[in-house]
Amino acid sequence: MIALGQSNPRQIGIAFGPDRWPADLAAGEHAMNGAEALIETLVANGVEVCFNNPGTSEMHLVGAIDKVPGMRPILGLFEGAVTGAADGYGRMAGKPACTLLHLGPGLGNGLANLHNAKKAGTPIVNIVGEHATYHRKYDAPLSSDIASLARPMSHWVQTVEHAADGPRLASLAVAEALGTPGRIATLILPADSAWNELGRRDAPPRARPAAAPQVPGARIDAAAKALREAKSAAIVLGNDAMREGPLLAAARIAAATGARLYAETFSKRTERGAGRVAVKTIPYFAEMALDELKGVDLLLLAGARIPIAFFAYPGKASVLVPEGARTQDLARPDEDVPDALEALAEAVGAPRSVNTLQEAKRPGLGEGRLNAHEIGRTLGELLPENAIVADEGCTCGLWASVHTAGAPPHDWLQLTGGSIGLGIPLATGAAVACPDRKVVCIQGDGGAMYTIQALWTQAREGLDVVTIVFANRSYAILNIEFDRVGAGKAGEKAQSMLEIGNPEINFAELARAMGVNAMRCTTVEAFNKALADCMATKGPHLIEAVL
Amino acid sequence: MIALGQSNPRQIGIAFGPDRWPADLAAGEHAMNGAEALIETLVANGVEVCFNNPGTSEMHLVGAIDKVPGMRPILGLFEGAVTGAADGYGRMAGKPACTLLHLGPGLGNGLANLHNAKKAGTPIVNIVGEHATYHRKYDAPLSSDIASLARPMSHWVQTVEHAADGPRLASLAVAEALGTPGRIATLILPADSAWNELGRRDAPPRARPAAAPQVPGARIDAAAKALREAKSAAIVLGNDAMREGPLLAAARIAAATGARLYAETFSKRTERGAGRVAVKTIPYFAEMALDELKGVDLLLLAGARIPIAFFAYPGKASVLVPEGARTQDLARPDEDVPDALEALAEAVGAPRSVNTLQEAKRPGLGEGRLNAHEIGRTLGELLPENAIVADEGCTCGLWASVHTAGAPPHDWLQLTGGSIGLGIPLATGAAVACPDRKVVCIQGDGGAMYTIQALWTQAREGLDVVTIVFANRSYAILNIEFDRVGAGKAGEKAQSMLEIGNPEINFAELARAMGVNAMRCTTVEAFNKALADCMATKGPHLIEAVL
Repeated sequence: MIALGQSNPRQIGIAFGPDRWPADLAAGEHAMNGAEALIETLVANGVEVCFNNPGTSEMHLVGAIDKVPGMRPILGLFEGAVTGAADGYGRMAGKPACTLLHLGPGLGNGLANLHNAKKAGTPIVNIVGEHATYHRKYDAPLSSDIASLARPMSHWVQTVEHAADGPRLASLAVAEALGTPGRIATLILPADSAWNELGRRDAPPRARPAAAPQVPGARIDAAAKALREAKSAAIVLGNDAMREGPLLAAARIAAATGARLYAETFSKRTERGAGRVAVKTIPYFAEMALDELKGVDLLLLAGARIPIAFFAYPGKASVLVPEGARTQDLARPDEDVPDALEALAEAVGAPRSVNTLQEAKRPGLGEGRLNAHEIGRTLGELLPENAIVADEGCTCGLWASVHTAGAPPHDWLQLTGGSIGLGIPLATGAAVACPDRKVVCIQGDGGAMYTIQALWTQAREGLDVVTIVFANRSYAILNIEFDRVGAGKAGEKAQSMLEIGNPEINFAELARAMGVNAMRCTTVEAFNKALADCMATKGPHLIEAVL
Repeated sequence: MIALGQSNPRQIGIAFGPDRWPADLAAGEHAMNGAEALIETLVANGVEVCFNNPGTSEMHLVGAIDKVPGMRPILGLFEGAVTGAADGYGRMAGKPACTLLHLGPGLGNGLANLHNAKKAGTPIVNIVGEHATYHRKYDAPLSSDIASLARPMSHWVQTVEHAADGPRLASLAVAEALGTPGRIATLILPADSAWNELGRRDAPPRARPAAAPQVPGARIDAAAKALREAKSAAIVLGNDAMREGPLLAAARIAAATGARLYAETFSKRTERGAGRVAVKTIPYFAEMALDELKGVDLLLLAGARIPIAFFAYPGKASVLVPEGARTQDLARPDEDVPDALEALAEAVGAPRSVNTLQEAKRPGLGEGRLNAHEIGRTLGELLPENAIVADEGCTCGLWASVHTAGAPPHDWLQLTGGSIGLGIPLATGAAVACPDRKVVCIQGDGGAMYTIQALWTQAREGLDVVTIVFANRSYAILNIEFDRVGAGKAGEKAQSMLEIGNPEINFAELARAMGVNAMRCTTVEAFNKALADCMATKGPHLIEAVL
């Protein structure tokens, strides 16, 4: 699984040639119901983990997961934990997990983290149970328009109207999910399409994901020309460009042309650390972003979109392109970005290597008062090689990123869709995908409470995750934003909507109540010891850092 | 608030006549932004509680709640807690609270409990923040199709395209919410429609909810005739028919005609207990429902819909009307059901009073082994007069209902939409609406974990709620349903998706971690003492009953 995770997602389709079909799947003669055929098709196409929270309408799917070999069910106590885990899994495995969700409301609970996954470009296949086709018309208590709910957070939505259609649609869903850079495919499965027997039994159809479209040579040449002519060029890197190989190509281009490199504000998966290419990030706040990019006359987009403000603010720009700069596409996120960067490096006559790689350095353990800065230092000092960091640190996360820059090579996963409540599930799914790697979740306390239930799944599955909760007792970002949008001075009532310290939440106790070993730290010394212990011990842990 | 809650929701519109406008709202000359005008309109129309979980795009709304007098903000740490509380509030107050939700993902998190509220017919006004109108086109990280998400769980969805439209649309939203029997109105508010100043300042427009349509006399006469001609009639009571007055009318009709009375399987709000009319409930399982109704030749529907199976099962009926029976509408849920029952009582010459009212009786405290039956007895023994019970007990809740039948008069709120995770928020909202009444939440452990965050809101607001968690460590209903749908024998993997006991969740510790006083009970004696203590002490408590 890890090997797959390290490979280019686009190449995965190739591994699923017909020679890979287990012969026994094709040869069997006995009857099979729609749910079994669907699960068999998913397994045959490399989908081997099902994050789930089922209900009555999905019982045949539960039965099918039981019977069909090769699908690992992982239960979540809430659907946001399920879909967020599928996001973490997909980002690290480079292929989809499936989710199993209970009708419209179950999907509804999972939508926020599907939103984040969609913005990331993560491959996910959702299976959403539905009432039997003939039962839909009665408007039973759990009836709702599932497709309407699914569409905004999916690239592809289909309904299995007949059991026999399940395998074909499941293979299409996998192919869709494996599109570039990764997509959300949602398959609605009425209960009778799950329980009805298939008349015949064929080999599970093969998913045929479309290869990422190659960027035309003319666009490469135009980019090379633009870089040559620009006085001050910046290359903005997005999506797959943030992996080690493409980053190196980008650094070579920078070395040849003098262009500066920037990452989008939030990246799906960044391969970073000592010996890799470090790039600056476009700041979150619009005015800081414009300030950072000031004087740039060309923004060349490599898998990134034109920089846009996260939110609109009265009288401030939405588009973060500095005055006098023009934007130009090298490769769109749904094109072969790594290939385009290699081609551009060639076209600008880039050197084979660069001397700008991140040097190995550790910041030393945190000292003094316990705060986000010192926590970041300790993390930078202790982060093991090949770790995965799931970052929903929000206002507290920045220092962790700064101080781990020179740590041994690791992956960094961010909140791409802005909907908080992803961190703990994201770490959960990453740990499932990569059982041999230490996962660190840096998590704001506000966001932690949306999907705190994912800790239970970590305990149940014995996942190697350390969650660091930054307990500042506040939606701290909103305290900043309240001023920034010009909403005036926050009075008592407004304050009550921005702070979460009354009553104080004991995150260590929450974690222990769900079977996760936990510590509450109020000093740097205690935190340093706790994190060192967690790094030395496999299994789920939580550290509540009281700020 | 309580007086309003006890009154007929349809009459509320009358209380909002122009004479009620505070003069200072109409007379002010200084400028006001869209958010302030919107909140002012809601307050002027009787919306005085805002359950909220805001984000950056709603900061001007937060500011407006701060500035405009009369709106009480109640923060939830997760949107399912917010919308479920709005449901509980709306059922008890008989008028809408508003919710404040953060863009599409925030709405997504709230959808499951909006689904339940929609099926209940609860009045709710959702305010969903959106990017500024000019920012929508950029597909920023938090962009999504909010209307598509809102429609399945709303009766009415509108967007405030200009700040000046806010008051009018807010008044329409309130009017819609106050329709019969209660509706979900969702108003999407782009950030610039919140922050832009209104050019002029008018009196907030008045919500004019439509009166519930009266049932035509011909239908009353037809119902009377049908009851006279039927050999074995049953009257199925839904929605507002489950309140004390209409139930008495139904009992009088039954006394005059020999018809049996049934409640729908799940009711929004039942006024029950000693001295009130007790009615049987149509069983949840389809075959039991058909068995119960066997021999009935007329199903007269009073605010109820034709009985439908909760789920489809292979080879079993979806429509639970026994063979040879016909159905006939007395009043649809969106008509004036109480009035129709009174008129029918008149038409069949019903007696003024009946001798079938529920007698006062207490079952005695539970004894022996701690189980759902004994918990039900203890609750029946201790439930105080005028209590409100929020029931998401699922497989464990039935005995509580049985043993409280003769307790002093109380309200019973059920899970109408089948999406578990409502109980704790529902109790939270009911307690806000009725601060002088004891609220008891009976809650299965599986369902508790979807919206456990609502306990924090109970602690923060000091609400008088006792939550009893039935900790059977299982999605027990699914263990039953797995068999019933014919999914075969549950093997190890299937079992792992139906049980939640590995690891065991310590609900008492979870509650304490969020500031709620909690006890974990493993014996009847301990439970009896704990519940007695909770009944004697105001404020939030949780009892984990380990089964």
